[in-house]
Formats: sequence, C-alpha cells, structure tokens
Amino acid sequence: MRVEVINTGTELLLGSVTNTHLAFFAKELFPLGLRIQRQITVPDGDAIREALVESFARADVVLVTGGLGPTTDDITREITAELLGLELIESADVLNAITQRFERRGLKMTQRVKRQAQVPRGAAVLPNNNGTAPGLYLSHSVEKQTPHLFLLPGPPRELKPMFCESVLPILQKVAPRNAVESRTFRVIGMGESNVEALIGEELLALDGIELGYCARPGEVDVRVIGTPALIERAAQIVQTHLGDNIASTDNRQLEEVIVAALRERGKKLASAESCTGGFVANRITNVPGASEIFVAGFVTYANEAKTNAIGVDPALIAQHGAVSREVAAAMAVGALKNANADFAISTTGIAGPGGGTPQKPVGTVFVALATRDGATQVEHHNFPTDRETFKWLASQAALDLLRRNLPALLPKHC
Amino acid sequence: MRVEVINTGTELLLGSVTNTHLAFFAKELFPLGLRIQRQITVPDGDAIREALVESFARADVVLVTGGLGPTTDDITREITAELLGLELIESADVLNAITQRFERRGLKMTQRVKRQAQVPRGAAVLPNNNGTAPGLYLSHSVEKQTPHLFLLPGPPRELKPMFCESVLPILQKVAPRNAVESRTFRVIGMGESNVEALIGEELLALDGIELGYCARPGEVDVRVIGTPALIERAAQIVQTHLGDNIASTDNRQLEEVIVAALRERGKKLASAESCTGGFVANRITNVPGASEIFVAGFVTYANEAKTNAIGVDPALIAQHGAVSREVAAAMAVGALKNANADFAISTTGIAGPGGGTPQKPVGTVFVALATRDGATQVEHHNFPTDRETFKWLASQAALDLLRRNLPALLPKHC
Repeated sequence: MRVEVINTGTELLLGSVTNTHLAFFAKELFPLGLRIQRQITVPDGDAIREALVESFARADVVLVTGGLGPTTDDITREITAELLGLELIESADVLNAITQRFERRGLKMTQRVKRQAQVPRGAAVLPNNNGTAPGLYLSHSVEKQTPHLFLLPGPPRELKPMFCESVLPILQKVAPRNAVESRTFRVIGMGESNVEALIGEELLALDGIELGYCARPGEVDVRVIGTPALIERAAQIVQTHLGDNIASTDNRQLEEVIVAALRERGKKLASAESCTGGFVANRITNVPGASEIFVAGFVTYANEAKTNAIGVDPALIAQHGAVSREVAAAMAVGALKNANADFAISTTGIAGPGGGTPQKPVGTVFVALATRDGATQVEHHNFPTDRETFKWLASQAALDLLRRNLPALLPKHC
Repeated sequence: MRVEVINTGTELLLGSVTNTHLAFFAKELFPLGLRIQRQITVPDGDAIREALVESFARADVVLVTGGLGPTTDDITREITAELLGLELIESADVLNAITQRFERRGLKMTQRVKRQAQVPRGAAVLPNNNGTAPGLYLSHSVEKQTPHLFLLPGPPRELKPMFCESVLPILQKVAPRNAVESRTFRVIGMGESNVEALIGEELLALDGIELGYCARPGEVDVRVIGTPALIERAAQIVQTHLGDNIASTDNRQLEEVIVAALRERGKKLASAESCTGGFVANRITNVPGASEIFVAGFVTYANEAKTNAIGVDPALIAQHGAVSREVAAAMAVGALKNANADFAISTTGIAGPGGGTPQKPVGTVFVALATRDGATQVEHHNFPTDRETFKWLASQAALDLLRRNLPALLPKHC
C-alpha cells in the first residue's frame, strides 16, 4: 500500500514551527508494515487542492494534517468536500462536544468555532479529546478512485492521541500483513563512514536485506529490514564488529536504556551540570518512571554554585579552572554525596559562542562518573559546534559514560 | 521567485529523524523576500529523480538536502549529474580538503569517502567545514530550463553553516528586492480562537495585510505580512487588545526575552524544578550569554532533594504534599537564597503518565516566583497532556510568570 502525507500550513513553510508529523506517522505506521512513500508541505489555499488531486491519483492511504481549525485560513475541510463532491452538514454530536469543551473550560464560544462542526456527508468523525476540531475519515472508493483519506488536526497534542485512538485501528483493518521486520542498532561514539567500513560489506552480502544508515550528532543508526531470520544474522554481524558501542537495538534513546536499567537494579542517579545547563537532567526526566531512579540534578552554572550547592573546593577551581578534569570529578562526587545516590554524572565545558581560550577552546568538555564505591572516571572531549548541538553531544558523552560502566545494560537483542 | 525544497532520505520517511531543514530554510529565506512554496520528502533512489524533474518544471530555486554522504544509499550527486547530462569529475581541491579533515582527526580514510570528491562539470563547490561532503551549486540555465539548484548535505550541523556562508550570498544576488515586511506577535496564555476573536476583524480590515495564526502549546503566534506602514497599524491593534500577553514581536522565544532583559538590568536568576526536571534551566541555558544571569538550577526530583539541596521543610511537604502551593513557594525561596539570586522560579507538579490522584490529577502544576525583596507569587495550572508537552507548558508558565513581573520586559516594538 502506498501511503502519502500532505501537511498544510503556511506556518510550516514560513518556519514558525517544525514539522514533527512525518516522523511521528512513520514510527507508528512501521509496525503495520506500512511505509510513507512521499510527504509534501503546502501552504493554505489552492495548493492543498493540487496536492490532494496528485495524491488521489497515486496513493492508497493519504494522511492530511492542518487546516481544520477555527481561523479563516483553515479550509482543508471545505476543499476536500468540494473535490469529492460532498455536501457539508453540521453535526449535532460534534457541535455538542465542542460546546461542552468550551463550557468545561469556562471559555466563550465564538461563531468561528462552530465551523468545526461541519462534516462532509458520509465521513466518519474521529473524536478530538484535546482540542475542538475533530478528525475526519473518508474510506477508499473504487468508483471515485479515491484513497483512504484522513483529515487530521495540525497541533501535535491533538493529532497524536487521535492518530493512536482512531486512525491506527482503521489502518490495522485495511493494511495487508507482511513478514518483514526492522531492527535499528543505535551506535554511539563512532562516525558513519567508520561504522559502514566495519559492517557494510558483510551486511550487504546478506541477500534480501535492506540496509540504511542515519547519522546524527553523537550517534549513528544502522537500520536493517528483512525477514526475521536475516535480521538475526545481521544482528550477529553488527554485534561482532560494534559490540559495546551499541546502545540499543529497539529504537530506545540512551536515556531510556539508562532509566530502565537503573529501575531494574533499584539504583539511584544524580547529576551535576555546568555547560549542559540542565539538559542531562531534562533527558533523564523525559522518561516516564524517571522519578524512581533520579534523585536530584544540580545545574551549577556559576563557580559559586559549584561550591555552595555541591561543595566543590574553590581552591580546586582556582588551580585548574572550572573546565577541568579535576572539577568534573569533584562535581560528580559532590552530587553523589548530596543526593546520596549510587551513580552521579557531571559535565563542565565551554558551550560557546563566547568563553573559549587557546588552551580551552569552545567545544572543550569534561564529563565524569562517580560511583558509590568511591571510584571516579573522567573523559575529555572536544565538540566544536553550535551551542545546542554542543549541549546534546556533551549530554550524550556523559550518559554514555554511565551506560558503558553498567555491563548489564548491554543490549539484550544481540 | 518560486522556491521549492526536496529532502531526500529514507530515514526521514521512516521517522528515525525529524526534518528540521524546512523550518531552518524558511527562516533564513524570509528576510530576502523569498518564501518556500512547496517542500517534499522522498526516499533514496528513483523518487529523487522524479522530484527533481517536477521541481525543475516549476521552480526558480531548488534546495535539495541529503544523499551526498559516503554510504551506498547516497546518490543525489549522481542522479543530478545524469539528469542534467553532466560528467562527474574528481575535484583535487575537494579530495584534498577531505584528506586533511581525516588527518586532523586521526581517522582512516576509506575508499567510499572519496566518492564525495566527485563534482558535476560546471558546478560550484560549497565548502563543508563541518563534514566531508561539500555542497554543490548549479546556476539557473535558460537553455536547459533548469532552476538555481543547490545540493546540500543532510546533517543539520553541516547544512546550517554551509547555507549561511555559501548559499545565502548567492541567493542575495539572484533574489528580487521587495518592500514587504513581516512581524510575529508571540502571545502567551490565550487560546487561538480567543486571540482571533479579539483582533481578527480589525486586522483583516487593514487592506493589503496578510494575516496568519500559528498555535503551539502555551503560545499563539500572530503573523502579519505587509508594507512597513501597515505593519505599524497592525501592531497598534494587537497591542491594544493583547497587551501584556505579548511576549515578543521579533520571533524571540520567552527564554531569550528573559535572558536579554536580566542582562540589561544586571540581575541574577536561579531555578528549582521538580516536575520539569531541568527543562527550565535547559531553556535558559540554551541562550548564548545565559552564564551572565543564570547562577544555579536545582532539579529537586525526590522529596529529600528538596530538603537537602534547597532547605524545603520536610514538615511542609508532609502537611501539604510535594505538589502544593506552599512547597512551590518554598522551593523558589530556597533556590533564591542558596544561589543568592535576584529572582528564582520553581515548578512542582505531576507530569504523568503515573502519579495522579483524584485531588491532584496528572497535569496539576504549581509554579512560583521569589524575588530578593522577600515577595513570592504562586500560580496553579492544569495541563492534562503527554509528559513532554506537560514539561513544556509548565516551563512556559514559570518563565512567563517571571516575564510578567518585569514590566520593562514588555516588547519594545509596540
């Protein structure tokens, strides 16, 4: 089945907002054996019409986002009805749901909001529990040569639950079954070309496997698609050559792997961050259940904070500088003690754009790990890049230092 | 001029990575008076060919990302040369730059990497200072009916600097000038339909203005495009009706507005976070120069951490619960004192999915502000949504509480 995505919204083409729909859809569709062949973003207005006509001619399933809201530039519903020759009817149920939603929140209902209760004749209404505009589903028509068509709201907080609750159950019924699987090996601490040099030829020699690489700062995903038997043979090859550099084989982020493993072991974690400014703690606490393992994070941005909050000796900072092996270690030890944790990780570095020196240029970072038995380890890295990528790479280095020191965290698949 | 974007990469369509290129291009092109009319994502292989042919027929400028890397699925360069009937030649300069890059990093150069030194005859090479694959530029050809064509690397850390250093200067020469401006009013604490009800009619009555809304969790952007005189009239209307809810009029994020204002005033900030888990500190420290104003952040996730790190009275937690008005205030006061700051903000709430109770359901959050003069303010919000959106909304509430208490932070444009 050919799946296409149409994202409407001038704000996407003006860069006011980043399009996260494609990645979300793709991840959700993959387990059904469905893959997106084409995604397009068009502004509001007649461009939507053209995109719909093009996709109708090619695709079996079309997912449209945006243009269902209350404002005057929201016209996806109207254009679709016109294209399919369907009358728009006000749905009493939808109007009722919208009215109740406004009453619950004590908000005044405007005339514009009522437009969202219009439904093309024959369309199924997909309830929106997180906003006013419902989604709409028009099933495949052999006669009209139209695909399974889903009109979905643009805001991710409305779209995502609606997709999981209403769209996936419909697609599960219409998608053909197949026996192909996928596995993604998340490799930390190596570049893309080195990864391919180690495993590429052997993997490509497995007849029938589809191989892909995706490099992001600080990690490379190696993705193999094929029969379950081929996937297992590929996993052996990857494990043999990349071993400890594999952080996960199930699309889990580093922080998810760490939280799960610490939960399993009943261990507690703390963090002390300078240059990453809370990003390490933020990544950890993005994982549901993090409260079982994460005690405290200290964002000791100023030198005095390193001393006042986690007891780093000011003399150590004066002697070696705040960005140093010694201070990184002292920060980890200080956080460990203050939080009475089993493990603590720390970061200190120069994120830039300012603050670099010839000895310690922008991009310099030390990450450290302290454990309850009194041991510390420090690593020195250099990530000369933009500020946010630097924070990502430094957090990645700190988290991976912890992962590599927990042998049982090694991936189970391999 | 019609601008189109083609993003290639199976990883984008599989959801392994979110496409951030469109938003980046759009923001950079806007000041040149250029707007993207269409963006498409296609997998590697023949789909690139089809997308190029389609765009060649329609567009004046085509920006292609991805498929220039060293791996076997990177074939954008080859397909473009074939389509345009251009021979591929190994560039000694490019090969030299790649070799030096590998030597500097002490990495072994593989045969695959050398493919990246292939250049279609007549193409200009756009240097890549952050990776191996250079970009390529083929100028508009009247004879061949081809647009200005840019082939750019996929990884954002390579693409972004190359775009600013090499692509923008070329586009500045070829783009026609125009006198249209844009202004975006970032509105905090109101829903999209209420915003439109207050200002929509008056703005639409300004003949010649283009009006757009973009709702994100916790904020609505109102974007007006028109002549400078019309923009000023629109600004007066928006200011009259939305006043203190406007956080910025120059696309700055809330955290950028706050860091700039505190720097101007020479004031210091601290934070104490429970449910946001470091996200507030992370947003603040994403802003270059944050180290001048941000002293320390305390991610006091466990109850003991609230007591040990920032002196919250355990009796207060026992009496009111960790998620309470009283504890939020005590956290802000504790962080203020420990960091000796002028302002401190705090968050305590229930991010979910677990941990809710009938009295304090998932989504409950208290945010507080403490100031050096001893005053505290607490707000109660309810954000029943997914974990990461909750963290965003709670951080937004805490940061906006601070902003609204700094009158001089009001936008200067209005």
